[in-house]
Amino acid sequence: MITVYSEDHKLRDAKTELAGGELVAPFEKPSRMDFIVDQVTVTELGEIRAPDDFGLEPITQLHDSEYVEFLAEAWGLWQEAGYQGEAIATCWPARRMAQRKPTDIDGLLGYYCLAAETSITAGTYQAALASANVALSGAELLNKGELNAFSLCRPPGHHAAIDMFGGYCFFNNAGLAAQHLLNQGAGRVAIFDVDYHHGNGTQDIFYIRDDVLFLSIHAHPAQEFPHFLGYADENGEAKGKGFNINYPLYRGANFEQWLEPFNDALNQIQKYSPDALIISLGVDTFENDPISYFKLQSEDFITYGNYLADLNLPTLFVMEGGYAVEEIGINTVNVLKGFEGR
Amino acid sequence: MITVYSEDHKLRDAKTELAGGELVAPFEKPSRMDFIVDQVTVTELGEIRAPDDFGLEPITQLHDSEYVEFLAEAWGLWQEAGYQGEAIATCWPARRMAQRKPTDIDGLLGYYCLAAETSITAGTYQAALASANVALSGAELLNKGELNAFSLCRPPGHHAAIDMFGGYCFFNNAGLAAQHLLNQGAGRVAIFDVDYHHGNGTQDIFYIRDDVLFLSIHAHPAQEFPHFLGYADENGEAKGKGFNINYPLYRGANFEQWLEPFNDALNQIQKYSPDALIISLGVDTFENDPISYFKLQSEDFITYGNYLADLNLPTLFVMEGGYAVEEIGINTVNVLKGFEGR
Repeated sequence: MITVYSEDHKLRDAKTELAGGELVAPFEKPSRMDFIVDQVTVTELGEIRAPDDFGLEPITQLHDSEYVEFLAEAWGLWQEAGYQGEAIATCWPARRMAQRKPTDIDGLLGYYCLAAETSITAGTYQAALASANVALSGAELLNKGELNAFSLCRPPGHHAAIDMFGGYCFFNNAGLAAQHLLNQGAGRVAIFDVDYHHGNGTQDIFYIRDDVLFLSIHAHPAQEFPHFLGYADENGEAKGKGFNINYPLYRGANFEQWLEPFNDALNQIQKYSPDALIISLGVDTFENDPISYFKLQSEDFITYGNYLADLNLPTLFVMEGGYAVEEIGINTVNVLKGFEGR
Repeated sequence: MITVYSEDHKLRDAKTELAGGELVAPFEKPSRMDFIVDQVTVTELGEIRAPDDFGLEPITQLHDSEYVEFLAEAWGLWQEAGYQGEAIATCWPARRMAQRKPTDIDGLLGYYCLAAETSITAGTYQAALASANVALSGAELLNKGELNAFSLCRPPGHHAAIDMFGGYCFFNNAGLAAQHLLNQGAGRVAIFDVDYHHGNGTQDIFYIRDDVLFLSIHAHPAQEFPHFLGYADENGEAKGKGFNINYPLYRGANFEQWLEPFNDALNQIQKYSPDALIISLGVDTFENDPISYFKLQSEDFITYGNYLADLNLPTLFVMEGGYAVEEIGINTVNVLKGFEGR
């Protein structure tokens, strides 16, 4: 399996994350990638390749173009305002407030943000662009005939909505990959999100569309981030009705409990019969993840990698979350090796 | 003029405010009150009196009762969760997300919050209750026949919406005072908000009502907090149509520029002919306020106090913002002395 990877993710190196009322060192940090790259190498998964540059066009096909401009300009505006910390949103268009775009950087941050744990820093935009290119390059590998590929994206993407960042995400990498496949001739694509957290951004982007089936197994939003999307009755709207499937699970779910919706999801994907499958691959379902509460063990990742292969679909793995840094490489590559071993 | 004041405001003594990407010492701090009390005393404004206790009923008449319960429980839940910092919201129901109330404290905080600069701390709820009682007691003074009174409220209230805290505010003190007067027989009350920031909470509470005329002169929301409410075309809805009047002014406005909408507001109040007038009194319009950008000088506060008296209405002053601590006493009491001097 080819891995697409860019060192440019290191340009995203935030010093602060707002958590528990404190500014702590971010859980989503550059060293996550080192452990995965090491494991890809040690296990001889396959070639590691740099991404191509797809420019802004595919990004503005899914994301609001003013949002993309905002991300490009945010750090500069923040510095001009003379602030000392990293750019963190402090207010937002809450219930019954106006959805009007302000002009100053504090207002813009809140307008384009869905969660304040995520700061914008000097290299964030560049890293997010590189991550988008990693996803798009992986999709292009499938397009060129590869049966599978691994887009080792950082920053992750599945929380990034049409016009909002948050949850460590800026551009929706999995969504960009799906759209690229559609642009290149695929008729239907499925995105299956196995990250601990609901892929609210991906749901947002494809909610009224029937050419992308979105499925997500995740911690129940009543208990966990992103808190305000991911309920089981969110099934899509308009022609997208029926093309959004959420499987919220309560905290503490073990692998057996997790496999139940997983198997249902595989059935749904088979029924949909997509031309390609994209896995939003978060391994924060791991029992020792520091910010998550499912109970998967390292060997379980091999098992479900096996099962994914049984779908017999061209499959792109797009890296999302996972914060147990020591084990992130093993768990991630276990999925890929499990997939290949079938 | 009688001043109503409670030392219980000191129970709200937050250590952190999220500003400029850092956790800084809050601008809205207990010592603000000391300077005002000193000036009330030095200028012999009149008696300083403790508030009566009105209980929760008037509060739940305006605020969502589950929101009030949340404020009562938030600090306990936060501590149970084991967090080390003060309770600060990190995510919220953003655009196109579900307006469903989560069960965990992180989700609840975001659900009931409109701005993350404001932390919830150990004594916050108790201080907010005391502040509400200060406002209600001031209203009761008018009800009993006083021609004017000063409710020296802290924490402030005008950003507190039906079911959201933020902008240093938890319960809407001015709104509670207005409702108390209506409950006691007034037919119409006007609330005139002269704080630098838009009184989004007060607008929210009375937006569909015609028994409270709300007027606000404030920094333009495109440039300033609360950013997402306070535009000139927000005029009220349903039977509240025409009973909400916003005067946004761009940063840098001086007293002459500020007086223009001020005089228009006086005309509107006269036309409405309310039984009582409530002034949401923020003095952060002062030229040296550390977080605001109008250019009023200390003597200007006397001048507009004069003009307010010309309305010849029973008038309750309810303290809101003002962060130039050294001068907050002089500027605040200048308004009251200007009012009395007429």
